[in-house]
Amino acid sequence: MGRDPRLTTHLALTARAFGAERMFLHPPDPDLSSRIDAVGRGWGGGFRVVPTDDWRKVVRTFKGPVVHLTMYGLPFARVLSRLRGRRRILLVVGGAKVPSELYRLATFNVAVGHQPHSEVAAVAVTLERLRGVPGPRALRGARRVIVPQARGKRVRTRRALR
Amino acid sequence: MGRDPRLTTHLALTARAFGAERMFLHPPDPDLSSRIDAVGRGWGGGFRVVPTDDWRKVVRTFKGPVVHLTMYGLPFARVLSRLRGRRRILLVVGGAKVPSELYRLATFNVAVGHQPHSEVAAVAVTLERLRGVPGPRALRGARRVIVPQARGKRVRTRRALR
Repeated sequence: MGRDPRLTTHLALTARAFGAERMFLHPPDPDLSSRIDAVGRGWGGGFRVVPTDDWRKVVRTFKGPVVHLTMYGLPFARVLSRLRGRRRILLVVGGAKVPSELYRLATFNVAVGHQPHSEVAAVAVTLERLRGVPGPRALRGARRVIVPQARGKRVRTRRALR
Repeated sequence: MGRDPRLTTHLALTARAFGAERMFLHPPDPDLSSRIDAVGRGWGGGFRVVPTDDWRKVVRTFKGPVVHLTMYGLPFARVLSRLRGRRRILLVVGGAKVPSELYRLATFNVAVGHQPHSEVAAVAVTLERLRGVPGPRALRGARRVIVPQARGKRVRTRRALR
């Protein structure tokens, strides 16, 4: 929905790092998809950016709760318990202009705080609250994995696992 | 440290929305500071962007733990308990090139996940874990406050409080 590519990259990387399986991106952005694929080739995991030119269809056909993150919605704490334990959840964030239709189509309109901030922050906090912060394990197929350090950087490289 | 202005705006708004008191910004960006001040005039609270051209001094003179957020650091869960209850904490995030000196100057180098993602996400999750998601109360001096809704948007406007 008319997005800044740097911010959308951060959004996709955040979704990936906190355990999302895929991101549907409307409108499609092939450059972004290939940048994110490159991250996956290095760091592993199955996350993909799926282009779509029909966000309504994605929202309407999704099997599971559709959670629109908006500062106008219900307090996060009130909705969180209804999401825990759900296997499939679709988080939706809009660009500058969110069609009002989205507020009706969503299962929940949820505010991660009622102040203006960032869709990157809202997605991060939501996924972290649902799944926790992932530990330093290598993702499937990773060529690189971080070895946590109190000071400095250590990255172990290896052949990709199947 | 050579930052994208849109991302830095999201970073500042996220820090503000999750309860930070101020953000030290190196290098200074007057346009960004005035954009964030404008948000504060509408939505209230005392958050400020403080320009600095000497990040080392900010880090060295801070009275409290300095927490450098980096995917190379120690797992978040291991450090979090040492931060709870501390009144003053300085979170540090770098741009593309973080000077290695920062890893030595920090009290803790902490990874909010060991995958590449976003400093916006890292700050959001850290502050949320330390303070929770703020509720829909009006901040001091706010002219606008959101009234949470299950569907749609409702904003109450009022004279600024002193």
